[in-house]
Amino acid sequence: MSRNPWRLAARTTRMNPSVIREILKLTEQPGIVSLAGGLPSPETFPVEAMRMATARVLREQPREALQYAASEGYAPLREWVAAEMRGHGVAVDGSQVLITTGSQQGLDLVGKVLIDSGSTVAVESPTYLGALQAFAPYEPAFAAIECDDDGPLPEALATRARGARFLYVLPNFQNPSGRSIGAARRGAIVAAAQEIGLPIVEDNPYGELWFDAEPAPPIASLWGAGTIYLGSFSKVLAPGLRLGYVIAPGDVMPKLLQAKQAADLHSPGFNQRLVHEVIKDGFLREHVPTIRRRYKAQRDAMQAALAAHLPQSGPRACRWRVPGGGMFFWLELPAGVDAEALLPRAVERGVAFVPGAPFFAGEAMKNTLRLSFVTVAPEAIERGVRALAAALETMP
Amino acid sequence: MSRNPWRLAARTTRMNPSVIREILKLTEQPGIVSLAGGLPSPETFPVEAMRMATARVLREQPREALQYAASEGYAPLREWVAAEMRGHGVAVDGSQVLITTGSQQGLDLVGKVLIDSGSTVAVESPTYLGALQAFAPYEPAFAAIECDDDGPLPEALATRARGARFLYVLPNFQNPSGRSIGAARRGAIVAAAQEIGLPIVEDNPYGELWFDAEPAPPIASLWGAGTIYLGSFSKVLAPGLRLGYVIAPGDVMPKLLQAKQAADLHSPGFNQRLVHEVIKDGFLREHVPTIRRRYKAQRDAMQAALAAHLPQSGPRACRWRVPGGGMFFWLELPAGVDAEALLPRAVERGVAFVPGAPFFAGEAMKNTLRLSFVTVAPEAIERGVRALAAALETMP
Repeated sequence: MSRNPWRLAARTTRMNPSVIREILKLTEQPGIVSLAGGLPSPETFPVEAMRMATARVLREQPREALQYAASEGYAPLREWVAAEMRGHGVAVDGSQVLITTGSQQGLDLVGKVLIDSGSTVAVESPTYLGALQAFAPYEPAFAAIECDDDGPLPEALATRARGARFLYVLPNFQNPSGRSIGAARRGAIVAAAQEIGLPIVEDNPYGELWFDAEPAPPIASLWGAGTIYLGSFSKVLAPGLRLGYVIAPGDVMPKLLQAKQAADLHSPGFNQRLVHEVIKDGFLREHVPTIRRRYKAQRDAMQAALAAHLPQSGPRACRWRVPGGGMFFWLELPAGVDAEALLPRAVERGVAFVPGAPFFAGEAMKNTLRLSFVTVAPEAIERGVRALAAALETMP
Repeated sequence: MSRNPWRLAARTTRMNPSVIREILKLTEQPGIVSLAGGLPSPETFPVEAMRMATARVLREQPREALQYAASEGYAPLREWVAAEMRGHGVAVDGSQVLITTGSQQGLDLVGKVLIDSGSTVAVESPTYLGALQAFAPYEPAFAAIECDDDGPLPEALATRARGARFLYVLPNFQNPSGRSIGAARRGAIVAAAQEIGLPIVEDNPYGELWFDAEPAPPIASLWGAGTIYLGSFSKVLAPGLRLGYVIAPGDVMPKLLQAKQAADLHSPGFNQRLVHEVIKDGFLREHVPTIRRRYKAQRDAMQAALAAHLPQSGPRACRWRVPGGGMFFWLELPAGVDAEALLPRAVERGVAFVPGAPFFAGEAMKNTLRLSFVTVAPEAIERGVRALAAALETMP
C-alpha cells in the first residue's frame, strides 16, 4: 500500500517552524550586518579554559564522565548552582537543582509537568519566543499580561492571570525587549501572584550580563515555594555545551525529575563535569566581567548610533530604552510602520533585524523590532543602524 | 498565603519513578554482584580517541563547537549516519537524519508528535521500559502484542494494533528479552502493518553488538515510508555524550524537528563534532569488534553458569534463550515463582537482577527477570548466577 500511514498528534498543529529561524536564513547573506541574531559572541568563549578542563576530565575521571549518570545531574555542579543561588538570596540546596540540556529543556519540562490542554499560561507582552514554542505543544491558552517599562503590571494579574497555571517572566534584560523588572515591581508582582495563588516561572539567562548595576534579587528569593527558577550556562560560558538548570520547590521537583528522565535520561555527564571543572575555582568571577565590558561597549555603540540616526521626536519618532544589560535593544517604530514590511528594505540596504510581532502571545505590536548588539563590532553596528534609518525613511 | 499554588498537569499521573532505578539503588551495595544494570562496560569507552578528538575540535573549530547550532544536528555527522544506514540497505540522505540527545530523546519526540491522549500505541511483550516511560506522558493506551521467540506475531497486529498510531519494536537483542526478530518475521510484520496502515517505530541501540551473526536488515530497509528508525552512539562509543539519532520519512520529519527545537534547541554541538571526529575515518570498524569480543566472552560465561546451576528440566525448570548479541539474558523462572519476591533473597546471597514485570505494558509475567552480562567479569558472573540459583532454591 502506498498511502501515508502517519497520523500526527493534535498538538502538532500548535508546533510551527520558528519565524525567526526562517528570517535568519534569509538574512545570512554576505555583506549583511546582522543585528538579527540571538547568539552570544564567540569571542567570549573561554576556549583555553575548556581545553584544560577537557584534558583533566578525560585524564582523571574518563569512565565516570562517559558513562550513564543520574537524571538529576552531576552532584558537585548541582551544589555549585545552589551555592550561587544562595549568594543571590535564594534559600536552596543541591537537591532542589535539576541540571537540564540548556534552559530550553527546562521550559519544555515545565510545560510538560504544569500545562494541561486548554489551561492558561500568563506571559509578558512581548515575551521570549522560545518559551512560547516550548509551551505550545502542551496546548495552553496564553494570557498576555500588559506591561510597562518596568515589566508586567501587578494589577493585570488578578484580571488576566487568575486561575492560570503559572506566570512566565524573564525579569533581567528580557529577550526581546531588553527590559528589566525593578525590585519594587518584583515585590508587587509576587504579592499579587500570592493573592491569587499564581505560581511564577522565572527565566534568567541574562542576569549576569549587567553593565550598569546588578539586577534586583530574583523573584525566587521573594517566594521560593511559589517559584520555579531557570538558569543557563549558555551566556556566561558557551551555548554549544547545552547546559542549564531548573530550581524548583519540593511540590514539583519530583515530577520535573521524572519528566527529565523520560525526555533524555540525563544531560551529558561529560559536559557537566567539564563545566564544573571550568567554574569550580571561581573562573566566572574573572571571566564574566570581560563579557560585560565587551557587551557594554557594543551596547553603547548601538545607543550612540540609534541616537545619531533615528528621529526621537516629531511624527516619525522612534522609541527605545537603553538596556542595562543582556543582548538586545527593542525599537518601537512610528505607529503604523510594519517592521515585517521594513525588513526586506533593510536587507536591501545591508542590515537585518528581527521583527517584533512573533514575540507577542496576544495582539502584536507590528511596529516593533529587536536589535542584537553582541556579535557585531561597534563600527558595523554604526553602519547597520545607519542602513536601518535609511530603510525606515523609505517607508510610507 | 502559604497554600501550595502548584497544580500539576493531568499527564503527571502517568509519570512515575522508575521501578528499576529504585531497585538499582537498593542493590548498589558493596559485595553484591550486580547483574541488574543496563549500562555498557566502561572498559569499552575509547578514552584515548576521545582525548585526541576533543583536543582537535577545540584547536580547529572551537567557536563553532561552542556556539548555538542547527536543531537538525551537525551536517557531517548526519551525513555519516545516512551513509551508515545506506550500508544497511536503508535509502536515506542526511536530510532525513535528526541528531538527538540520546535515543531516549528520540522516543520522547516520537511520542510528542504521534501520540494523542487515548490513542493506541502497540508494543512488544515485554518491551523497553524507557520507551513506556517516554510515551506515557502523552497518555496513550498501550496494546501489548503477543510475541514468541522470534518477536511479535504478525497475525496479532490486525486484531490488537488496528488503528494504533504506531508499533514500537526493538528488533535486535531486545532490552529486556535479548530476543531478535529474524528476516522472515520482519517481512511478515511489515506486510501485516502495511495491510492495516500501521507505521513502525524501530529502535536499534544494540544492533552493532552482535556476537554470532549480523542481524537481519532493518525494518526501515523494508518500508522506509512507514518506519521511524532510532539509533544511538551510547553502546558503540559512550552514553555520557548523550547522542542518538532519528531517521524519519518526509511526512513526519518536519514535526519531529519542530519538537526537537522546542525541547532543547539542539543537541550539544561540541559533542556532535567530537563524535564525528572520532568516527569519521572508520574508527568504529576497529573499535566495535573489540566490544563484541568482550561481551561475547561474558555472554558465554553467563550461558555456561546458567546451564551449570539452574535446572532446565523437571518441575523447577528455568527457561532462557542464548542472546545472539546485546547485553541481556531473559530468564523465565518456574510458573508461580515471583521474581520480585526472589530479589531480596538473591540480594541476601550477593546477587542483584531486575524483575521482569515492569517491562510489560499488558499483563506481566511475574516469573521473569533480566540479567545483564556486560559490566561484570566472567568469574563474578559465575558467582552471581550461583547465588541466584541458591536463592531460587529457597523459593516455595
